[in-house]
Amino acid sequence: MQTLRVALAERSYPIHVGPALLANRDLIVSVLPKDAKAAIVSNATVAPLYLKQVETSFRTGGVQTMSVVLPDGEEYKNWETLNRIFDGLLENRADRRTVLVALGGGVIGDMTGFAASAFMRGVPFIQIPTTLLAQVDSSVGGKTGINHPLGKNMIGAFHQPLAVIADIDTLKTLPDRELSAGLAEIIKHAAIRDLDYFSWLELNMDALRARSAEALTYAITRSIEIKAEIVALDERESGPRALLNFGHTFGHAIEAGMGYGTWLHGEAVGAGMVMAAELSRRLGMIDEVASRRLRNLIERAGLPILGPDLGVERYLELMAVDKKAQAGQIRFVLLEALGQAAMRDATHEMVVRETLDACVTPS
Amino acid sequence: MQTLRVALAERSYPIHVGPALLANRDLIVSVLPKDAKAAIVSNATVAPLYLKQVETSFRTGGVQTMSVVLPDGEEYKNWETLNRIFDGLLENRADRRTVLVALGGGVIGDMTGFAASAFMRGVPFIQIPTTLLAQVDSSVGGKTGINHPLGKNMIGAFHQPLAVIADIDTLKTLPDRELSAGLAEIIKHAAIRDLDYFSWLELNMDALRARSAEALTYAITRSIEIKAEIVALDERESGPRALLNFGHTFGHAIEAGMGYGTWLHGEAVGAGMVMAAELSRRLGMIDEVASRRLRNLIERAGLPILGPDLGVERYLELMAVDKKAQAGQIRFVLLEALGQAAMRDATHEMVVRETLDACVTPS
Repeated sequence: MQTLRVALAERSYPIHVGPALLANRDLIVSVLPKDAKAAIVSNATVAPLYLKQVETSFRTGGVQTMSVVLPDGEEYKNWETLNRIFDGLLENRADRRTVLVALGGGVIGDMTGFAASAFMRGVPFIQIPTTLLAQVDSSVGGKTGINHPLGKNMIGAFHQPLAVIADIDTLKTLPDRELSAGLAEIIKHAAIRDLDYFSWLELNMDALRARSAEALTYAITRSIEIKAEIVALDERESGPRALLNFGHTFGHAIEAGMGYGTWLHGEAVGAGMVMAAELSRRLGMIDEVASRRLRNLIERAGLPILGPDLGVERYLELMAVDKKAQAGQIRFVLLEALGQAAMRDATHEMVVRETLDACVTPS
Repeated sequence: MQTLRVALAERSYPIHVGPALLANRDLIVSVLPKDAKAAIVSNATVAPLYLKQVETSFRTGGVQTMSVVLPDGEEYKNWETLNRIFDGLLENRADRRTVLVALGGGVIGDMTGFAASAFMRGVPFIQIPTTLLAQVDSSVGGKTGINHPLGKNMIGAFHQPLAVIADIDTLKTLPDRELSAGLAEIIKHAAIRDLDYFSWLELNMDALRARSAEALTYAITRSIEIKAEIVALDERESGPRALLNFGHTFGHAIEAGMGYGTWLHGEAVGAGMVMAAELSRRLGMIDEVASRRLRNLIERAGLPILGPDLGVERYLELMAVDKKAQAGQIRFVLLEALGQAAMRDATHEMVVRETLDACVTPS
C-alpha cells in the first residue's frame, strides 16, 4: 500500500492506494473519528460487488453502519437522487457523528460529498472510489456537487474527505469503456504538467488497458500526486487549479449537449482535449507534432477523438454557461507545450469556431 | 445608523442598523465587491414593497441586477423553491462574480444563503432582512438551509454574508403576528445571556409592540450584539452557540408536528421557551418566580405560551431527530437563572414527559 497526502493545512488528508484495502479492517476503521457511525452510499452496480465487504470491515471493527443504494449513472446525479441520501440518513436517525462513506465512482463520490457537506450543515465523509476515473480524479480535491438541467456540477460545495481509500482490486470488475474514461484524466494530468509522465504513458498504454497491476499502480499514484499538488496550491480554484479543467470546457458542452449520461465524462474529456489541443495549435501555441501525439494517445486509450456534431452555436452557448466563464466570457485551458498548460480568455472567436468545425464527427 | 461587527477572522462582516438604509445607494453599493452583479432574491409579499427601491439603489450605483421572486412562507422553504433560485441564476447567466442579495424574512435569508453557498460551489451573498425575526436572529450567524419532511433545517451550510443591512423602516409594514414572532428571539437573547436586558424588555414590551423606533432600535442592536458575541465564540456550533437554541428543541417539534408554516417559527419558540423554563424549574434549576416572569413576558409579546397537543410520544419522537440530538439522545438548553442558560442531556425522561403534559393546550 502507498500512502500519499493532500496538504491543505487543517484539512489535510491521506490517500491510500493498493490491493486488498476494502478487507483491511484496521485501515478502514482507522480513518473514522472515535464513536462515529458509518453511512455507506453506493449504487446498484457497485453494491452487489463490494458493499458487504465494506460493511463487514466496519462492523467487525465495532462501527455501526447503515447503507443507501442509489441507481447507477450520471443521469441520476441530480437533486431527486441526492434527496434519497437525506431520506435514508434521517429515516435511520443519522446524527452529527455520522460519517458518510462514498463507495462507487465519481457520481457517487460527488453526490455523497455534497450530501455530507449539507446534511445538518456538514458532517465528515470518506471516499472509497471503485473506478479508475474516481481514483485518479474526482475523489481527490474536495469538489462535490450535482448537475442542473442548465449545467453540469452547477450546485455543490468544496468539502474535503477525511481520507481516500483506492483499492486497485476493484478495477478488475470495471467495464472497458469506464477504464478508458479513467485513462482520459490520467492523460490530462500528464499533458498539463509532466512531459516525462506523458512519454511513460505512450510506452505503457497497452499495459494499462490490459490492467497490469504494476502499470495501474504507477499511473494512479503519479496522477494523484499531480492532482494533489495542484489542489494544495489552490484549494478554491482561483488560480492554478483551473488547469485541471484542460479538455473540460469542451467536454462539459458535449455532456450537456448530448444529455448527461450519454457520453461518459472521460469520453467527453477525451474529445474535449483533442479540441483544446487543436485550438492551441491554431493559435500557434503548440506545433502539429504535439497535437498529434496527444490525439494518438487519446485514441490508443480507447477514447473518442471527435465530438458529436451539436452545431457550433450550441457548443458556444453551452460553453458560455460553464462555471469557469466570467462575465459571459469563455475561458480555455490551452497547451503551451506537451506537459505545460495555461489559461486563456477566448479572444479569438473565429478560431474557436474553426476548431469546433474541424473536431466534430462529420454529419 | 449604527454599525456592529461580527468578528470571525477572515470572514468578519458588518451589520448596519437604522432607518432609510434601502435608499442609501452609497451604503448598498459599498458592501459589494468591485465588478459584482447583484441577484436579488425576494418573495411575493416583500417584493412589491421594497424590490424596486433596492434595484434602484444598485442600478443608479452602476451595479447590474437580476431578481427572483419566490412564494412567501415557511412551507416553501424546500428544494423545489430553492431550485427556482438556481433556475433564475442560470437563465440569467449568473457567474462567479454574481452576489446574491436576500431581501425578505428568515426563509428568504436561509434559502438565499444556502443557494449562494452551493451555486457554482459558492458565491458571496448579502442579507437585507425585512422582518424583526430576521433582523435580530436569522440574518446574523451564517446558518443557511432548507427543511426536509423529516426535520427542519436538516439540509444547509454555514455561509457568512458579506454584510447585513437592517432597515428598521421595513418593520412599519410588518404584520403584528410577525412582529410578535420576532420578539420571541429578542426575549430569548435576554433570557439566555442578560438579566438587565430582560428587565428592560419587561419595562418596554408595550413600546416595542407599538413599534416605537427608539425601543426597536435599542432591542435590535442589543440582540444582534448578543447573538454576534456568541457566534464569534463558536462559529460552527460545537459549544456556546448551542445556547441560542433555547426553546428551539421544543419549538422545532411544534413546527414539524403541526406542519411547517402552520405556526410561525417565533410562535413555536415562544411556547418552546415556556416548556424549557418549566423543565428547568422541575429539575430544580430555577424557581417559580423566574419561570413565571419568562412566561408573562412571552405572553405580553403576543405569543402562545402553550404548545399544541401533539401527544407526548410524538413530541419525543420529533425531538429525537433534532440536529442537536447526539446518538439519539435529546439535548436541551435550560436555564440556570434568568439571563443564564446551560446545555443538559435529557437524562430525566419522566420529567420531560411531565413538562410536556403540563405545557400543551388541554384537548
